[in-house]
Amino acid sequence: MTVLDHVRRYRRAEGWRGLTEFAGLLALDNQTHDVPALRRNADLVAELFTARGATMEILELEGAAPLVTGQLGTDPRKPTIGVYVHYDGQPAGPAGWHTPPFEPTLKAGDRTIPLPGAGDPVDDDWRLFARGSADDKAPLAALLVAVDALRAGGAEQAVNLVFCFEGEEESGSPHLRDYLERYRDRLRADTWLICDGPVHHTGAPQVVLGVRGYCGVELTVYGPGHELHSGHYGNWAPNPALRLAQLLASCKGPDGRVTIDGFYDSTRPPSAAELAALADLPPVEEALLGQLGFAAAEVPGSRLVDRLMWPSFNVKGLAAADVGAAARNVVPASATASVDIRLAAGNDAGHMIGLVRAHLERQGYLVLDRDPTDDERRTHPLLARLDGEIGYPAMRTSLDEPVVAHLADAATRAGGRQALVMPTLGGSVPLSYLAEILRAPTVVLPIANHDNNQHAANENLRLGNLWYGVDLFAALLTAEPPRTAGPGGPAGPA
Amino acid sequence: MTVLDHVRRYRRAEGWRGLTEFAGLLALDNQTHDVPALRRNADLVAELFTARGATMEILELEGAAPLVTGQLGTDPRKPTIGVYVHYDGQPAGPAGWHTPPFEPTLKAGDRTIPLPGAGDPVDDDWRLFARGSADDKAPLAALLVAVDALRAGGAEQAVNLVFCFEGEEESGSPHLRDYLERYRDRLRADTWLICDGPVHHTGAPQVVLGVRGYCGVELTVYGPGHELHSGHYGNWAPNPALRLAQLLASCKGPDGRVTIDGFYDSTRPPSAAELAALADLPPVEEALLGQLGFAAAEVPGSRLVDRLMWPSFNVKGLAAADVGAAARNVVPASATASVDIRLAAGNDAGHMIGLVRAHLERQGYLVLDRDPTDDERRTHPLLARLDGEIGYPAMRTSLDEPVVAHLADAATRAGGRQALVMPTLGGSVPLSYLAEILRAPTVVLPIANHDNNQHAANENLRLGNLWYGVDLFAALLTAEPPRTAGPGGPAGPA
Repeated sequence: MTVLDHVRRYRRAEGWRGLTEFAGLLALDNQTHDVPALRRNADLVAELFTARGATMEILELEGAAPLVTGQLGTDPRKPTIGVYVHYDGQPAGPAGWHTPPFEPTLKAGDRTIPLPGAGDPVDDDWRLFARGSADDKAPLAALLVAVDALRAGGAEQAVNLVFCFEGEEESGSPHLRDYLERYRDRLRADTWLICDGPVHHTGAPQVVLGVRGYCGVELTVYGPGHELHSGHYGNWAPNPALRLAQLLASCKGPDGRVTIDGFYDSTRPPSAAELAALADLPPVEEALLGQLGFAAAEVPGSRLVDRLMWPSFNVKGLAAADVGAAARNVVPASATASVDIRLAAGNDAGHMIGLVRAHLERQGYLVLDRDPTDDERRTHPLLARLDGEIGYPAMRTSLDEPVVAHLADAATRAGGRQALVMPTLGGSVPLSYLAEILRAPTVVLPIANHDNNQHAANENLRLGNLWYGVDLFAALLTAEPPRTAGPGGPAGPA
Repeated sequence: MTVLDHVRRYRRAEGWRGLTEFAGLLALDNQTHDVPALRRNADLVAELFTARGATMEILELEGAAPLVTGQLGTDPRKPTIGVYVHYDGQPAGPAGWHTPPFEPTLKAGDRTIPLPGAGDPVDDDWRLFARGSADDKAPLAALLVAVDALRAGGAEQAVNLVFCFEGEEESGSPHLRDYLERYRDRLRADTWLICDGPVHHTGAPQVVLGVRGYCGVELTVYGPGHELHSGHYGNWAPNPALRLAQLLASCKGPDGRVTIDGFYDSTRPPSAAELAALADLPPVEEALLGQLGFAAAEVPGSRLVDRLMWPSFNVKGLAAADVGAAARNVVPASATASVDIRLAAGNDAGHMIGLVRAHLERQGYLVLDRDPTDDERRTHPLLARLDGEIGYPAMRTSLDEPVVAHLADAATRAGGRQALVMPTLGGSVPLSYLAEILRAPTVVLPIANHDNNQHAANENLRLGNLWYGVDLFAALLTAEPPRTAGPGGPAGPA
């Protein structure tokens, strides 16, 4: 009987304990930005790992949510694996939650069922609904159960673990660089695993070597100084909502290609190895179209994984005056679009924001970083405000790193089917900070189901994915990885 | 001493009483759609006119706000003037009111001052702030003071008055046709005066012979069945906010010209007499640009009055997911634009909405009048919902009607400066219904200041404009108008 067999037997018998503990963690409001609420999450996370014998530390920088660090195993002869998870979640705001976001609710299909107790059967297809259930408290729960399972079976850790549990990922990790630079001595590892994001759409385990980066642009176009009666002035007064529409339409064509000058120029094209890995991935598009509720991709016939190799331009929100029953017959005073740009390898956030600014300026706009003054209103027919938000850069670890095959093997054993190796995930996690500052290869190991409603209402984790996470951590904890050199030279404990 | 001299002396001494009465009327919430609140307004309006000896009737149709009708003077030898006013107001919702919309507040500049009492001075430039102060309770207040002033001076009415006070104008007058058809016998007049809208931007009195009509289009474009994580799916999933922007941009060019096929075809071009009247109007554009807070019109250098002769396409609201601090990193599930189309003479509302629909269809959209089904989502890449709202048609009374010169003369005497004759107002009032059903020439006689913030926060009436209204009604009540034939044949009491 292998270690994994023992772990599976353990979690079938005792997994309900882990589920109960997980539900307790999900009951804590963890909306990003809310530092007092996030401190309560940090305290509980530290407590749960301390109970397993880990040495935990809650670090705080001024104005930041805590960073929870710690170690489990400190044998200098063993390699060290770093585990990054973020315990904060997206705002729970959007309407449409069927059950409150911080009242973890287990469901079999549409039916709410109680959490299982000792001896109760547990179905892999049941789902636990709560903000953070998938993104990103799931790996914490999985790791806790994995450690319990190994202890119960008397298995020895083949590696040391170092933890980096962030509380600001959903805010764009504004203090992560500072934390890592300040505490890098406590965060030495041979490899960093970023446990975030979903597994492959087919349900296959996956090892992801990169992420897209992120920057945001909030764009406001100004019309009259205040809303005007659309009868008296409509057709004569400039309409900022129409102008915003024209600007956005000028940024991306109906063919899905961004038409901002230079938008694709800095992108590092996929390498031959990456293209080969992409070609190996099974097609998912037909299945996704049905699941996600649309008939064709933005670029009809395109493959999702191919599109992720290039920067995106996504309008994530629009607002001007009111629509529907609240609409009034006005020329709006301003119109705002919130845009997120996912960066591909090679893109610099500040540079990309600059390209958007230059695009506006080429169309005659005076582009401000604040509301216009009366004088600017009098003298500039085209006025816009651009607020840029610089997130993290994209990052792609080389397919040639020896640890890649080791991780794919562990994921294959844990998942019971061949793990897929993806050159990049679509989402953005601060992989590049860890790679740069901690000088170790970073690899994303997701466990959540792909249809987890991440960032939206009714976020959920399929229990089968939680168990996959348990098995994956158990496999990683009990197999020695190959020693590797980080991108910036030798890494690991000094 | 002329009748007007008497009236002016009266209102200087006793105008405070009218102001107090006006404030009482403005203290009643009159937001359109709220029938119980509107009934309270109707009751008070009827009571105020009954107190002046008018015979008033409050009429109600199922599901409609009341129509207040009445007569003041019933001498069959005298001509009859109809006075239309609407007592409902726009929703008071928009943020930015400095004082509550239904707590009428008198201000000298930015300073709140108490309502004047007997003997207190009253400045023409003071303003009374409240929803409805200008649009459109002001003519009611002015008419009440005019009747009081004439009574006090012992002047005899040269004309009979018939009243039509509507409670649903800001909702698009959904029952006005029914009311007029049902009660046309009580609404016989030789001329109908529509007392609504602002005077000329220069402050000159004006007589307006037409209005633009109105129709609305609410347009929703669909993306994924629910919001998607913009990292995982942005650049691959279709973005409804961008598509909506592209659609809107395809409806109107940067030159301000609507590019929907056939959009201008049904418009009756201005007649030679109208072109001459337009040419006579003083330029206001430079002054307006400064007041309204923008540097150039939508079509730079265009004249406001010229633009009003053609239908408009005005985006009055936009919404998709969220912007600002509430923005989430999603591909929105849908995006909505609320558009109002002001109609020019010749345009039919249903036809214009049909042109928008055809425009969408030509771009490949399946256009629905409801949300798409799952099956439609699976089979149609381009999905939109179009909800059309049919308002009233535009209407322009001929410059050759004999009553036009009579009204211009009264307005000139009341205003103390040459009245302007405008072929059309930019706004929409149900002039065509009165003209068609009541078979009499209809002319708009506005009294409010043009900078009254109509439909927006901080709606206000300049007191000088209230007094102009008093003088105007006094002039009209004491001068016999020429007998005219309505557009459909002889009109007036049978």
